[in-house]
Amino acid sequence: MPIKTIAAEARFSSEKMAKTNLFGTERFFCDVYGLEPGQSQKPHTHEGADKIYCVVSGTARVRIGEEDALVGEGAIAHVPAGAEHSVENPGPGRATLLVFMAPRP
Amino acid sequence: MPIKTIAAEARFSSEKMAKTNLFGTERFFCDVYGLEPGQSQKPHTHEGADKIYCVVSGTARVRIGEEDALVGEGAIAHVPAGAEHSVENPGPGRATLLVFMAPRP
Repeated sequence: MPIKTIAAEARFSSEKMAKTNLFGTERFFCDVYGLEPGQSQKPHTHEGADKIYCVVSGTARVRIGEEDALVGEGAIAHVPAGAEHSVENPGPGRATLLVFMAPRP
Repeated sequence: MPIKTIAAEARFSSEKMAKTNLFGTERFFCDVYGLEPGQSQKPHTHEGADKIYCVVSGTARVRIGEEDALVGEGAIAHVPAGAEHSVENPGPGRATLLVFMAPRP
């Protein structure tokens, strides 16, 4: 049965943000990102693919294009294809994010 | 800024499961489903599109093909394209599910 538990799958590393893949086909992927305080995913862009960040626990600063927002558990953001984006955990606790992308790059 | 809060977007109806669209393009959509106790999404199939159910709050019985599982907050399930699936809220409380599909049917 293809069912997982987000908190059980999330990994964290003192070196850098940890990505764990949950599911994926050629149409999409779904990952969990674990960020220790101060860790981030640097600004980048996906041409032709939409991305969703969903904050499962902790706090995240999400930047999309020229705008950014500090958000907490239950926040969900859409990064349109072609938009530069990044995410950072300002702390003080860990942050867990659910991430979707369609299609899989 | 395309950021929303899942709990603030979820709607519920005494008549049937309520769907609220959060985001979407031709590549995907992301909805929130609000289910009162006893409400369900009947068995159905999407050819050529993958679906994800993620339990944000409450309890859900997820069926994919011939298997089913009773899961709670933080559970995430992948419904492969072509697989019959359904979801039900056995109660006693409300259930909120985040749902992704790629591509948009």
